[in-house]
Amino acid sequence: MSTTVRVRLGRKIEDLKKKVLELGAQVEEHVRLAVQAISARDPLMAARVIDGDVEIDQAEVDLEEECLEILALHQPVAIDLRYIVGVMKINNDLERIGDLAVNIAETAVLAASRKHAELPFDYGPMAETARFMLKKSLDSFVNLDEKAAFDVCAQDDEVDYMKHVIHRQFEEKINTPPPRLEALVHLFLVSRHLERIADHATNIAEDVIYMVTGEIHRHRGALDVRETEAEK
Amino acid sequence: MSTTVRVRLGRKIEDLKKKVLELGAQVEEHVRLAVQAISARDPLMAARVIDGDVEIDQAEVDLEEECLEILALHQPVAIDLRYIVGVMKINNDLERIGDLAVNIAETAVLAASRKHAELPFDYGPMAETARFMLKKSLDSFVNLDEKAAFDVCAQDDEVDYMKHVIHRQFEEKINTPPPRLEALVHLFLVSRHLERIADHATNIAEDVIYMVTGEIHRHRGALDVRETEAEK
Repeated sequence: MSTTVRVRLGRKIEDLKKKVLELGAQVEEHVRLAVQAISARDPLMAARVIDGDVEIDQAEVDLEEECLEILALHQPVAIDLRYIVGVMKINNDLERIGDLAVNIAETAVLAASRKHAELPFDYGPMAETARFMLKKSLDSFVNLDEKAAFDVCAQDDEVDYMKHVIHRQFEEKINTPPPRLEALVHLFLVSRHLERIADHATNIAEDVIYMVTGEIHRHRGALDVRETEAEK
Repeated sequence: MSTTVRVRLGRKIEDLKKKVLELGAQVEEHVRLAVQAISARDPLMAARVIDGDVEIDQAEVDLEEECLEILALHQPVAIDLRYIVGVMKINNDLERIGDLAVNIAETAVLAASRKHAELPFDYGPMAETARFMLKKSLDSFVNLDEKAAFDVCAQDDEVDYMKHVIHRQFEEKINTPPPRLEALVHLFLVSRHLERIADHATNIAEDVIYMVTGEIHRHRGALDVRETEAEK
């Protein structure tokens, strides 16, 4: 590869990085707003997340097209190739996190319609941890920091534990049914959305490990990155 | 690209296609077994799905490594490049469908523990349609058949409708609570897993459309391929 070509590819990659971070920041903000909309019973805040998702969808498509163009025109190899493939996967995870924020925001709309009912679960710590993992996974991407990426993967267990606690609370509450059970179910499902956000953050961290080391770090334990919908 | 190089790449691509189909067949079988395990209350059948998932996970990692190797060594362009990228995404969707089959199988284990309780929902038609979509999306991949792929995308609405019917039944049943509400919730969630299987089949079909036309067909309507966790 000539120096000029390499410089041009380097510039494209810098540009990709910037766009991933912009998308990441937007997605992070959506997660924050969606969770806050539940506790604040604020349907307008929830609507911002729901309506703003089309932008995230469009940004994902644009970013993917850019990656494909770089692959086609610059034919990167070795670490550059891994980088582009990694960006495509991170892009996909960010878009899915955006979808999960929409799901949470939809539950916030439901919660807002019954302002006087007490919230049955405290999502605070779980949401904090999931958002922290997302932020850290994006930091590990910027700095290609393998150690930080491994830390994110390790933290996924914490979120799983928190989800189990909420699951336990759900089992207790459903046996002494409140007046509107359906709302309880939806509010319970928020803990699953948060858990999946943490899973996607873990995926991003794993992609960074792949970018840096060239090794695929998925499925270390059979259950690690499984989408956990019907767990015990 | 010289003729020899092209022949070699062609062979690699044929080999990839074979492996995607093998993985697809295995995933299809897992979906079939998982749904059957619920109605048959057969925990052993469910265990086959749960225990067999490690193989699917490994096959996904192997297939992805093969794609990366081809990208690095053969530097495919145009339709070949789109094909490899498409295979990477289809591979990912198949693995996630495998995870969803595990979730369904886990609910089957729960259902098997209460043999005499009537099943609250009839998943038959929804499961049939989701499996049909998966099969057809894989057929559209083999034949690079754009029309068949579009048909799969269109059929996703049917599955969404069926899920709404089950959701309605769930709302009715939860207001006249059965003795074990938690089981009802889990059994209800099976309809979501099935819906997401159909979503992934739709993703596969969209990847085929991309392979054939070079156009990204996602997010046609803002809600189309959203992961629907908390829908109304």
